[in-house]
Amino acid sequence: MELQFLGTGAGMPSKQRNVTSIVLKLLDERNEIWMFDCGEATQHQILNTTIKPRKINKIFITHMHGDHIYGLPGFLSSRGFLSGDEQVELDLYGPVGIKDYVLTSLKLSATRLPYRINFHELTVEDTGMIFEDATFQVYMDVLDHGIISYGYRVVEKDKVGELNAQALRDAGVPFGPLFGKIKNGQDVTLDDGRVIVASDFIGSDKPGKVVTILGDTRRTDNTIRLAIGSDVLVHEATYEAKEAKIARNHAHSTTKQAAEIAIAAQVKMLLLTHISARYVGPEAWRLEEEAKKIFPNSHVVRDFEEVEIK
Amino acid sequence: MELQFLGTGAGMPSKQRNVTSIVLKLLDERNEIWMFDCGEATQHQILNTTIKPRKINKIFITHMHGDHIYGLPGFLSSRGFLSGDEQVELDLYGPVGIKDYVLTSLKLSATRLPYRINFHELTVEDTGMIFEDATFQVYMDVLDHGIISYGYRVVEKDKVGELNAQALRDAGVPFGPLFGKIKNGQDVTLDDGRVIVASDFIGSDKPGKVVTILGDTRRTDNTIRLAIGSDVLVHEATYEAKEAKIARNHAHSTTKQAAEIAIAAQVKMLLLTHISARYVGPEAWRLEEEAKKIFPNSHVVRDFEEVEIK
Repeated sequence: MELQFLGTGAGMPSKQRNVTSIVLKLLDERNEIWMFDCGEATQHQILNTTIKPRKINKIFITHMHGDHIYGLPGFLSSRGFLSGDEQVELDLYGPVGIKDYVLTSLKLSATRLPYRINFHELTVEDTGMIFEDATFQVYMDVLDHGIISYGYRVVEKDKVGELNAQALRDAGVPFGPLFGKIKNGQDVTLDDGRVIVASDFIGSDKPGKVVTILGDTRRTDNTIRLAIGSDVLVHEATYEAKEAKIARNHAHSTTKQAAEIAIAAQVKMLLLTHISARYVGPEAWRLEEEAKKIFPNSHVVRDFEEVEIK
Repeated sequence: MELQFLGTGAGMPSKQRNVTSIVLKLLDERNEIWMFDCGEATQHQILNTTIKPRKINKIFITHMHGDHIYGLPGFLSSRGFLSGDEQVELDLYGPVGIKDYVLTSLKLSATRLPYRINFHELTVEDTGMIFEDATFQVYMDVLDHGIISYGYRVVEKDKVGELNAQALRDAGVPFGPLFGKIKNGQDVTLDDGRVIVASDFIGSDKPGKVVTILGDTRRTDNTIRLAIGSDVLVHEATYEAKEAKIARNHAHSTTKQAAEIAIAAQVKMLLLTHISARYVGPEAWRLEEEAKKIFPNSHVVRDFEEVEIK
């Protein structure tokens, strides 16, 4: 499981940072990639990565500001062109309005997608679990950004420990249906009367990973609730620590505020993004130092950077 | 007067060519820049030029396909941010639907522009002159592209010849109001009875430049009518000469068809753009050679290229 940052700037593109888009690569886990936000030129950024657009089968939009959505119509169109005969349907989650935005853009540009989009427009009443299947859950909570802005917590379910097949063979268990029963946690009695206790032959559960990715937001306690115990928290840090007033007025966060949230939510790693264009080059590393003073495992990400979630 | 090509590819961005946008720099003539089409990431391309977004005060959209309009909401938003206290209103010309596209995108992204947009939605009934002021005219004609697609002919009015002030002084004409009369073409009689014939002291008119920029199109006689005698014709050449059938099916043109139009319209220079991504690197120069065989002053443009109109 890896995060890759396709755009790490705020508001407008700059030469150093594109507007926001993040992908969560679940290739080993699901052979899928999930996208969070899709600012303008996200499809252009993807040209410089190994990402195959058709593998992106879920998109989560945090909020409706242009620097988080203006790349959607182009990405969705090109995804169809590039997928040829391998069209894969796509689930699109986001605030109310995202469906109107996408469908109006596609209709007025006479674009007919060769795959289906399942729209999931979320309201504040949807706070909580918004997706679950056998291996993953996604939770949403509401942030504080002037307009509706959501954070998403992606939870990989714990993986059941693996069967120690060699040990079973060594114990004289005949290969066959008994293996399946034991793998499912069922104790079995062999023909010779011996009882095989399943738990002796199954490794311990592997805890799943938890990644929380936020939209733009002021410091809010909802974030702590959403991010609690995450392996990684992706938090915006539009401004440096001393600009708390500007951050508040523009409904954004500072490095310090994000780092304080990381401590309160007891996350393992804090990734800071959505950096204002006023902090160019080495200035961004100063932001990182500010956060590290409060939460040592902080990092300011740059465009195209990949972070493995261990 | 210069043309600059911000995107010269077809349909989707590639690493070599962005989707369509062209600017006509009228800095000496009007201190303005006019844009033709605004594909996704046009504002990103502008970051790598000397263009000031607030100088772009007219945008002409040729047709509503995504690769020609998806950069508009982002460009328009950033133009406001970047202009600070120097907000300049903007005229936007294009097919019916362009207003709905722009206003829906801005509204749903909670974007309020700090300048006014004057929308000019054009129908086929508007064929002919769509703009005129003291120094320029713009004509529109309808092309052949499946959906409504327009071409625009920009006509700089002839500049009246300059007054030869030195020659007037040498002829003993007293500097003052008489100079103004003569400059306006009025013959005057001096106190000594001599008649000064204005035309003897005014240089010949300087013909204005004519630039014709087309949207996507099949070969059509309307183009000849629109482009006749232009200094520069910007014509799409999505495909090489031998792909005439594919070009017809996709409502596009080949190099050969564009070059034949250039001859029929008696233009001085043909610039080929909207090149399919199948022609990478040197392949594009093969397209140029094809066109040159028919119309020698042909050139395949690349992203960021500037062409002075002499």
